[in-house]
Formats: sequence, structure tokens, C-alpha cells
Amino acid sequence: MKQDRRAQRRQRRSQSPLLKIPFRQLRNPLRPLEILAPEQIEQLHEASMHILENVGIDFFDDETLDIWQRAGARVDHAARHVWLDRGLVMAAVAKAPAAFSWRARNPAHDLAVGGNAIVFGPNGGMVYAANLDIGRRPGTMADYENFVKLSHLCPVLHVSCWEQVTPQDIPPSTRHLHRLYAGLTLSDKVVMEAAHGRIITGDCLEMARLVFGDLDGDPVIGDVVNVNSPLRYDDRMLGGLITYARAGQVTFITPFILAGAMSPISIASALAQQNAEALAGIALTQLVRPGAPVIYGGFTTNVDMKSGSPTFGTPEGAWALLAGAQLARYYRLPYRGSGSLTNAKVPDAQAAYETMWTMWPAVLAHTNLVMHAIGWLDSGLTASYEKFIIDVENLAMFYHFLEGFTIDEETLALPMIAAVGPGGHHFGTPHTQARYKTEFYQSALSDRQGYDTWLNAGGQDVVQRAYATWKELLAQYEPPPIDPAVDEALQDFVVRREKELVGKNLYD
Amino acid sequence: MKQDRRAQRRQRRSQSPLLKIPFRQLRNPLRPLEILAPEQIEQLHEASMHILENVGIDFFDDETLDIWQRAGARVDHAARHVWLDRGLVMAAVAKAPAAFSWRARNPAHDLAVGGNAIVFGPNGGMVYAANLDIGRRPGTMADYENFVKLSHLCPVLHVSCWEQVTPQDIPPSTRHLHRLYAGLTLSDKVVMEAAHGRIITGDCLEMARLVFGDLDGDPVIGDVVNVNSPLRYDDRMLGGLITYARAGQVTFITPFILAGAMSPISIASALAQQNAEALAGIALTQLVRPGAPVIYGGFTTNVDMKSGSPTFGTPEGAWALLAGAQLARYYRLPYRGSGSLTNAKVPDAQAAYETMWTMWPAVLAHTNLVMHAIGWLDSGLTASYEKFIIDVENLAMFYHFLEGFTIDEETLALPMIAAVGPGGHHFGTPHTQARYKTEFYQSALSDRQGYDTWLNAGGQDVVQRAYATWKELLAQYEPPPIDPAVDEALQDFVVRREKELVGKNLYD
Repeated sequence: MKQDRRAQRRQRRSQSPLLKIPFRQLRNPLRPLEILAPEQIEQLHEASMHILENVGIDFFDDETLDIWQRAGARVDHAARHVWLDRGLVMAAVAKAPAAFSWRARNPAHDLAVGGNAIVFGPNGGMVYAANLDIGRRPGTMADYENFVKLSHLCPVLHVSCWEQVTPQDIPPSTRHLHRLYAGLTLSDKVVMEAAHGRIITGDCLEMARLVFGDLDGDPVIGDVVNVNSPLRYDDRMLGGLITYARAGQVTFITPFILAGAMSPISIASALAQQNAEALAGIALTQLVRPGAPVIYGGFTTNVDMKSGSPTFGTPEGAWALLAGAQLARYYRLPYRGSGSLTNAKVPDAQAAYETMWTMWPAVLAHTNLVMHAIGWLDSGLTASYEKFIIDVENLAMFYHFLEGFTIDEETLALPMIAAVGPGGHHFGTPHTQARYKTEFYQSALSDRQGYDTWLNAGGQDVVQRAYATWKELLAQYEPPPIDPAVDEALQDFVVRREKELVGKNLYD
Repeated sequence: MKQDRRAQRRQRRSQSPLLKIPFRQLRNPLRPLEILAPEQIEQLHEASMHILENVGIDFFDDETLDIWQRAGARVDHAARHVWLDRGLVMAAVAKAPAAFSWRARNPAHDLAVGGNAIVFGPNGGMVYAANLDIGRRPGTMADYENFVKLSHLCPVLHVSCWEQVTPQDIPPSTRHLHRLYAGLTLSDKVVMEAAHGRIITGDCLEMARLVFGDLDGDPVIGDVVNVNSPLRYDDRMLGGLITYARAGQVTFITPFILAGAMSPISIASALAQQNAEALAGIALTQLVRPGAPVIYGGFTTNVDMKSGSPTFGTPEGAWALLAGAQLARYYRLPYRGSGSLTNAKVPDAQAAYETMWTMWPAVLAHTNLVMHAIGWLDSGLTASYEKFIIDVENLAMFYHFLEGFTIDEETLALPMIAAVGPGGHHFGTPHTQARYKTEFYQSALSDRQGYDTWLNAGGQDVVQRAYATWKELLAQYEPPPIDPAVDEALQDFVVRREKELVGKNLYD
């Protein structure tokens, strides 16, 4: 009986075009789109070296200050401030690998990071969840698990566990335990979990060891390290950076700069500052552990000077994304950007065009790690179930697009052109009949019917169809197998640490 | 009093960011995005030469058959079929200009076609009009005039007169007269009008002479010439092609190929056939008048094999658009593609992402003439007022994006970075204060408010805001000045021809 239900589920699953593309490493074989000339990259490099040497950076963490001091930097311990010589920074940055592998619990889901490989990661940091029937509300652990399940199900997504939505029904001090337990058990793809301070990252490394054994090989976990721009790293991010880097795990050093607020108002200035801040953090990872996997991150856009809000999906954001990739290539580092950014409050045409104003540049730039690739809404405050599906559909289109098409005798089919001749049609030819099921991208979501057929079927817009799709996908979800002993060990760890961490401030 | 109202209108007009970008020739300074290797372009070229030489093309027009015969082609007059030798075709194609100027009634609106110049043209061929309050209904002359007015108003659009929507309240035999009269009087931008048969194009040339005098200089009018794919030109399109080309006016030779229906099912085959069909028409224009301005057009996508409908905004369409541009460059010809294509029935997220799946490739490919750049809905059956505004907003973003940003001492603003220092903010600095009104792209349409502000203001989606925008723009419209004698001559012509053409089949 259970067997039957499983077979039925598999049957249904095979029908959704969204699930048809097999999981694989996406690569962009096209030449990267570059908007800056080599001498402009040099200008930005020079400006950022000037900032590091003459303005310097705050590091609010004693261990970090000691590391810089030992490395020969000029350190003001009282001001917790460091001036970084370009020789020191560039020698450290040069030790970072240009590419690395990131292991998943299921080796079939291992990832390549760097070169022309593209990894699509989920949303992170959303405080609300939203869907069509309930609307927007504070995120819960159930929402978090749903997003992990959906991310696990969709083969075009490479990572299913990030901080996709805050589980506000769990105490802050133990959220990381529950998020990572869900990520490690509900999915077998690569996991990310908060690089926030030494306690959280220490727990994450412990849980990773329960699953992967020792962590000596390729990295198995990691997360973003944000800069408190302008020019400041706080203790929380530095604790995370040092703990992950020391364990050989992944950090993506990402200044979040809104030009006009955290930097001067021009994109040139924002990029020079981004570059200084990112290189400082990347150099630090290499002082902690030479060769530690690290990714150059960019998250630069501008403030809307009318509302004071950040803007997403703008020409300025596209410039910053493309120029950031050029800077990362200049330093031979993997590059992290973002994908589905938008200011829109609902998954409307604005949400879609702003997402495309981010995703097209991200893919064309050879962004190695495209975070926030699905479901982002309301300037990153909300994780939308329907936008998740709309964005996944577009990721699938990029897979198909980057595959390109074959030009050979068989596809040119000149004898068929001759046989059908002028004024005929190719619907019924053997060439068409043999290929019509597989030749073209099949949309899971886009309406392609005639107007009357569409209207008679209910006249649904894409959000209504996306709602039906995520409901259907969740109904099809099955957890990937896990060794019961590993699962039990993870559960034991979570239970023990929950007790130990009650009421504790994790960033003391 | 009238003066006052005008001043007020100008005042209001200056407030809409959509109207702030001055009219100008858009250029793409980036290297064109190319998806095919040079040897793949050669493969497509060879395949299309094979088709022209061995399969041949139908030309359902006696004058055309005579032209081919005189040029030395093998013609079967009974079958109205022609086999075209590659030497003959390529020698003729080589006479076409790589670039040309297109004159508008207002010289400030003249256009460059070719090179890295991009022209954004409006919708064409829609039978329905749709807006938020009335919904979809058959197009009328009032709708047509509204779209001409809106296109005239928006500086990012280069052309305001095409067959934007069929005026179904005007008899078919005189629609061209009313459309062109509206285009020549409600706007002073470049005009396009149907290249359909000898009568319509003859009327168009007459009306153009009333405005421009003799037509000896740069062209002043033109339109698309579609191929009845596969491999057939009908008398209607050939009459238009010959009349416009002979008068030195513009034709864009555009096969409309749905792979799997009008060509074999692969994109490789569709492109080979597109290339053969386009080159045949382009060669014909040069036999009619060497040096006549002509544009290589592509409109290739695929049939959705489930519904039998054409698909728009797909990876396949993006491939065809990008490869078509490479082919046009190979022959040193200007290139025509399309922009706002979608299958969606409403201006929802699907409409937006499919449009972006067309517009990004179109812009990156250096598409010299991007037709259907605004307002397209429902597979080209419907002209949407709201989507017009949404698309115009995105065109404005491409203008801003392609301008790029400056990197110099002033924009790098290193002294400001030093002055603000770590942990500060740049909102109030003199550098920000001097630039905050002009530094960034200002959206006319995208919501950038906080969630609560947005909700309290009515929680509108982008379609509701676009509705308000086009209403506001139409209220601001003022016709450009025209010599009353010219206007009267045009009116007289329309009145006379209306009587002469009553009940006439224009394609006899």
C-alpha cells in the first residue's frame, strides 16, 4: 500500500516540467558580459588600495586585531582600527583558491564554485512569509521547512538550506539548531547556516561532523559574512568568519552598500569601497587559514533618494553586479551576487521585471553563487511562496538557454525543408513527430493557451497558477533517505544544545 | 488663459520621470552578446544557400518573377517559383547599405539605423485594445490615436506610428489613410505604415510627399515585409516591397517562423530557413533599387507542441533573436527584432518576465530596430495600455543602463570616504547633497516605499499604477505644430482617396 502511494507520487512528480530538468552543475559557456574596461578595473583597484592604506577599517574583535598585528598591519587596539598595506592584503588574497568543491550530504548534489559554474541559492534573511491565501505574516518553522522542501524538490536550485525565513515561533538563541537540522534532514543538497559569532558556527560545525565525519576534505558548510558598511566588521561577523575559515569552511564576504547611505552617492565610489571592504575580509580568511575557500561577494545598489529605501532591480544594481564580477575575476576569486531582488510588495509585473533586471546581469556576469535566486519580495523582508515558483520557472529557462542548440545535419533537416516545400507545414513530418515532446523548453507555469481557452479555464494570472504549483509540489515531497543513527545523533545534539542555550545571548 | 493651461501642462509634464529622459539615439557601447561561433554562422549560411539554390522560393507576383528573370535567376513562371544562385543573391545583398538615416517630420527626431544604434518601435498588428477599467475589446481609431499620442509623448520611444491596433470602426480599405494621417499629425517622430500591396504603399508615398516634399534624400517611411513561411512571398507583400524599395524607402524583410510549424522543429533549421527567406527578399530590394535601405528581420520562435500556439519570451526565442543579429552582422546589414513579446493575457509577472526574456537579448544583440517594444499582450493580439507604461519604464531603464557610470576623482570621492569614516553615513554630506536629485535612475512606476506606507496608500500593484500613469500622460498630450497648409493637403488627400477606395479590394 505504501509502495503504491510512493509509485503514484513518483508518477505525479514526473508530470511537472519544473522537476524534469535533472540536477546538474550549471555552466555559462558564453563570454562574461563586461561593462568596464581593464583600466577602469585598475582605477577601482587603486581607489580601494588607497582606502585600505589611508582610511583603514574597524574590526570589533580582539582576536582579529591580534591576527592583523601578527601579520604586520598597523593596528590601533583602543580604536579597534586597522590600516592595511596593499602588499599584505594582496599577498593574503592570492592564497585564496580560484575555485573549489562544496560537498553535499548526497554526493550527487556536490557543487563546483568558481570558473564559469553557476550555483543558484535560495532566499535568506526574510522575516515574513507570504502566500496567496493567507497573505503576509511573521515566518514560522513550518514556513522554513516548506521552503527547504520546495528547494529540495526543484532540481534547478542547488542549495536548499539557508535562512530562508526567520522561524519566529522558535526562540532566537536556538533557531540555528532547528534550521540546520531541517536542512540536513529534509534535503540532501548543500547546506548554509549563519556565520554569526563563534557559538552558532561552533554548533554548525558539530552538526556537520555528525553528518560528514571529520571536515578535512572539501568544505560542507558556510555562509555569508556581511560588512557593517562603511568600513566596519562587527564581532558577530568576525567570530563567524574566523570559526568557519579556521575549519576550512566557506565564507562569502559581502559588503552590503547602498550608495548614498553607506558610501558616497556614486556607483564608482560604492564599488571602490565594496572592493576595499571585501578584500580586507578575504585577506583575513587567508591569514586564519591559507587556502580556505572564500567567495568575493557584492551586494551594492543605491538608496532611493525620494523614500530613503534601498532600491532593487535597477540599472545601478545591474552595473554593480556586473562590475563586481569583473573585480572578482581580476583577483581570481569566485564571485557571489544575488538574483530575485525586487522592491515590489506582491509578485506582480514589477516583481518580475526587477528580478529579471538582477538575474540577467547575474547570469551573464558569470556569478558563481547567485544567492536570493528565488522567492524574494518586499526588499528582502518577505519570502513569497508564489514568487518562489515564478523564479524557479525562470531559473529553468536559464538552464535551457545556456545549453544552446545544436547545428548539424540532423537539426538543419534540409531534406525536410525540401520535402515540405513552399507554403506547406511541418506539423506532421517524421522529423517533427520524432522530436516534438522534447525539442523545446516546456513551461510549467507560463500560460500558452488561446485567449478563450484561458478565459474558460478560469482566466488565472500567473500568481494563481504558481499557488497551485507549490501546493502540488509540497504534496509530492518525500524526504531523502538518512541513516537513522545520524538522524538520532543530530536530534540529540539539538535537544542538548537547546537546553544549554536557553536565554543566552549568542554574540557575547 | 490658453497660455496658462499650457504652462500648467508643461509644469505637470516635467514631473513625470518617464518624460524626463530627452529624446535621443540610443547606442549600445557593449560588445554584442554572441551565442554562435563563427563556424556555426558559416554552417547556417551554407544551409541557407543550399535552400535558395536547390529548393527555391515562391514569388506570387509577376513583376517580381520578371525582375528575377532579368537578373539571371532560374524562374518557373507557371509555378511562380524561383531558384536563386548564391552568387546572384550575395552580389545583390552586398549593395544594401550597412546603415542609414531615417528622417522624421521633426529633424530632432531623425534616426540612425545600423551599427550599435538601437531604435525602439511600438506595437504592430494588434486587433484588440485592453485597459484596466474596460478590459479587452476590438480596437478603435480612438485607441489607435491614443497609442500614437502616448508614443509621441514618451521620449524613450523612437517611432510613434505603426499599426499599433486595428481601428475596427474604420472600413478596411481606408484604414491606412487614417492611421498615417494620425501618425503624421499627432506626432512628429518617424512613421511606419503598411507595406501591403501597391495601392496602400502608393498612397503612403503620396502622403509622405505632402509632408516631406520629394523623397530623394534619406527615407521617410517604411514597414515590415513578412514572408509567408515556408519559402513563399505573396503578391501583397511583394507589391509593398517593390513600391517602397523603388521609392528608396525602408523595408524590414522579416520571416515569421514558428519552428515545428513553418519550418522543421529545430531552431537550427528555422534559422537556416529564416536566413534563406530574408536574403531572398533583401536581394530583391537591391535588384529593384541598388542601395535601397533595407533591414534584415528575424521573428523566429517555436510552436508550443502542447497547445499548438506560438510561444513568446522563451529561451528558444532568445536564441533566435541573438543568432539572427549575428547573421545580420555577417552580411553587414541592420537588424530588426522584437521586444515586449509574451503569451500572457494580462500584464502580470508572466507578461513581465517573458518581455524581459525578449528585451534583454534584443538590447544585448545590438538589435538596431526593436519593434513591438511596448504594450504587446496575448501573443500579439492585444495592445495593452498598462503594459505600454510598464514596458516604457523598462526601456527607460535600458537607456540608463547603457549610459554606464563614470569613474573619476569626483565620482570616486575618496576624501568623502575618509571624512565619514567607519560606521558613519553619507546622507548629509555635501557630495550627496549636490547629487541626490540626479545621480540615480528615478522610477516613474516602481514602488519603492516601505510596506506599511504602500499599504496605507492603497496597496496598489504595478498595473494599477500604470493605469493612473497613462491616464495622466494622455491628459498632458499636446500635438506638435504642423503647417496648416500641409495638414489641409493631407486631409484633402484622405477625403479624396476615401471616396475612391470605397469597397475596393486593395490587393487585387
